[in-house]
Amino acid sequence: MSAPFSFAVKARDGAARTGAITTPRGVIRTPAFMPVGTGATVKAMFPEDVAATGADIILGNTYHLMLRPGAERVAKLGGLHKFMHWEKPILTDSGGYQVMSLAKLRKIDEQGVTFQSHLDGATIELTPERAIEVQCLLGSDIQMVLDECTPFPATREEAKRSLGLSMRWAERSKAAFETMSAPGQALFGIVQGSVYPELREESAYALTEIGFPGYAVGGLAVGEGQEAMFETVELTTAFLPDDRPRYLMGVGTPQDMLGAIARGIDMFDCVMPTRSGRHGQAFTWGGRINLRNARYAEDQSPLDAESQCPAAQYERAYLHHLIKSGEMLGAMLISYANVQFYQELMAGAREAIGAGTFADFAENVARRRRGR
Amino acid sequence: MSAPFSFAVKARDGAARTGAITTPRGVIRTPAFMPVGTGATVKAMFPEDVAATGADIILGNTYHLMLRPGAERVAKLGGLHKFMHWEKPILTDSGGYQVMSLAKLRKIDEQGVTFQSHLDGATIELTPERAIEVQCLLGSDIQMVLDECTPFPATREEAKRSLGLSMRWAERSKAAFETMSAPGQALFGIVQGSVYPELREESAYALTEIGFPGYAVGGLAVGEGQEAMFETVELTTAFLPDDRPRYLMGVGTPQDMLGAIARGIDMFDCVMPTRSGRHGQAFTWGGRINLRNARYAEDQSPLDAESQCPAAQYERAYLHHLIKSGEMLGAMLISYANVQFYQELMAGAREAIGAGTFADFAENVARRRRGR
Repeated sequence: MSAPFSFAVKARDGAARTGAITTPRGVIRTPAFMPVGTGATVKAMFPEDVAATGADIILGNTYHLMLRPGAERVAKLGGLHKFMHWEKPILTDSGGYQVMSLAKLRKIDEQGVTFQSHLDGATIELTPERAIEVQCLLGSDIQMVLDECTPFPATREEAKRSLGLSMRWAERSKAAFETMSAPGQALFGIVQGSVYPELREESAYALTEIGFPGYAVGGLAVGEGQEAMFETVELTTAFLPDDRPRYLMGVGTPQDMLGAIARGIDMFDCVMPTRSGRHGQAFTWGGRINLRNARYAEDQSPLDAESQCPAAQYERAYLHHLIKSGEMLGAMLISYANVQFYQELMAGAREAIGAGTFADFAENVARRRRGR
Repeated sequence: MSAPFSFAVKARDGAARTGAITTPRGVIRTPAFMPVGTGATVKAMFPEDVAATGADIILGNTYHLMLRPGAERVAKLGGLHKFMHWEKPILTDSGGYQVMSLAKLRKIDEQGVTFQSHLDGATIELTPERAIEVQCLLGSDIQMVLDECTPFPATREEAKRSLGLSMRWAERSKAAFETMSAPGQALFGIVQGSVYPELREESAYALTEIGFPGYAVGGLAVGEGQEAMFETVELTTAFLPDDRPRYLMGVGTPQDMLGAIARGIDMFDCVMPTRSGRHGQAFTWGGRINLRNARYAEDQSPLDAESQCPAAQYERAYLHHLIKSGEMLGAMLISYANVQFYQELMAGAREAIGAGTFADFAENVARRRRGR
């Protein structure tokens, strides 16, 4: 018998918590950052290097994978873990967010969303049931309900109407999950409600009535600004059950994550470390570095002397040369170092929460990163 | 005291030889394949993985490095080995070949070649003396004389005139090398003469009169075809001293290399394994595979079950997906597997020559690779 899905908080420091999510494929230490493996690869990284950074879990994008190589094909090939050489847990989103941001000619109705693939123009229908089916075909350990990510800004009325649809889809997603999922897999609900406190409360209440082993805060990091995001996170986590993991979707910068951890968030995902890495932007303990900048052309210091990452030991002058020359090795090294920085940041947060010093830790990180 | 440069033949099988070149930075087992690290990186590979394939030496391109990041800058940063995290030997070409193929507005005269950088249009002069200076600034272990790679086809008269210039430049290169080089570094001469036997003989004779610790066969793999190449290699190696390594520049396919080894060649370089890898073309013991081909979309067999390379253990279906999706990981894995295939081919050749079974080995490789 494999271990069922569970979550245990091990220590608290204010609203911040550290703990562990247990799944049949391994334990996820929280707070956790999930590198994004959109198309069955964390871009420009070998899977063993992703694991070496300390990542306990990665994220896969249902939208991309259902279009290419296709969920049925991934299932036929033994599932996403085997396909992409990643044995530890995988969380998949529902595909809804990318349908809205990437696909053409979208049509949303009560049944679901119909769209044209950005790859070949094929017409595809994504319903709550199909979103779960796809995630089960992929073999995802943590699945997400299909929802509508309410655009920002939205009027209260628009946000309420969108929220109603998302809550009805959440119920259908859970019903589908119960008939299709494998033992130990989990389905998370997603709180919407834009920046309206009473709508966030209504959404959190509706989801906890349905009942999920974990809850995501959705519809943020869409242009509302850090202050509004923190306010919404703070009030939303207060409405969510204390004994379930909380996941802030698509966030974010180091400061975004530290602020959200302080407000009770346990999980994050973001393309920033890998996307920035491919463009020569590095995250270090001393702050952000743009390696395209000519000031690094003869800088013999390592990318980040404090990092344990092998890639962070390369000299800035060399990384500058690689990025300026468009060499893949530049993207490979900086992506690796960035993902490891994110993991080391999470490890530092977990340790500080355990020691009751999280506020000091966060302030210290912020001060040093501002100092550059 | 570091070991001086030396070459020892350990076994022979017909005209094929296996041996070792000793340099202060390590031993190069021959026959040797040198992966090409054009711009201070073997494209899409971590340097430790290049070493893990069994490569004893890599090649750097003087033309590219003198333009970016610049030879003086590399010297200031501690030399090419330190810059690119490669401690083993490096061979550099003289830059002449790339000037002719990549630069604009070239002008050749007795003094050298003047050209415009393909990067920023700057006017640059490359003389035999500057070619050596650049290679010494890079810290190259095996340097090449500046020569004119005679275009193909060339009339006998054109080839003879070009050859004359190359031989005078070889003499100037050696004189410059003697004043600039560090202990243990070596300078190789380059035989030209197009496909004219008497010109190849004249060139080999002129170079051995000047005297070099190694000799390259240049001006081949430029469109003359495999048969003409093999004929020219065979007659050229016969004119070269038996106790010096022989390097066939810019070659080639597995069959090209096996044919050249049978005719007395000890060293090769070629962009093929890395360039093909980036385009989804894999070299395997069973033949060449185009992973873009739809036939691999659900092929669960590993890229090459016989290879010891970790990258060759990935399923073809996954590599197909990565290449079709334009994911860097596809280029990373196939480049790695290809370079390792080339190294395993050289290791097989060395073993077979040692055992006196090289002809069988080459025929067996050819038969199996044709079989696909």
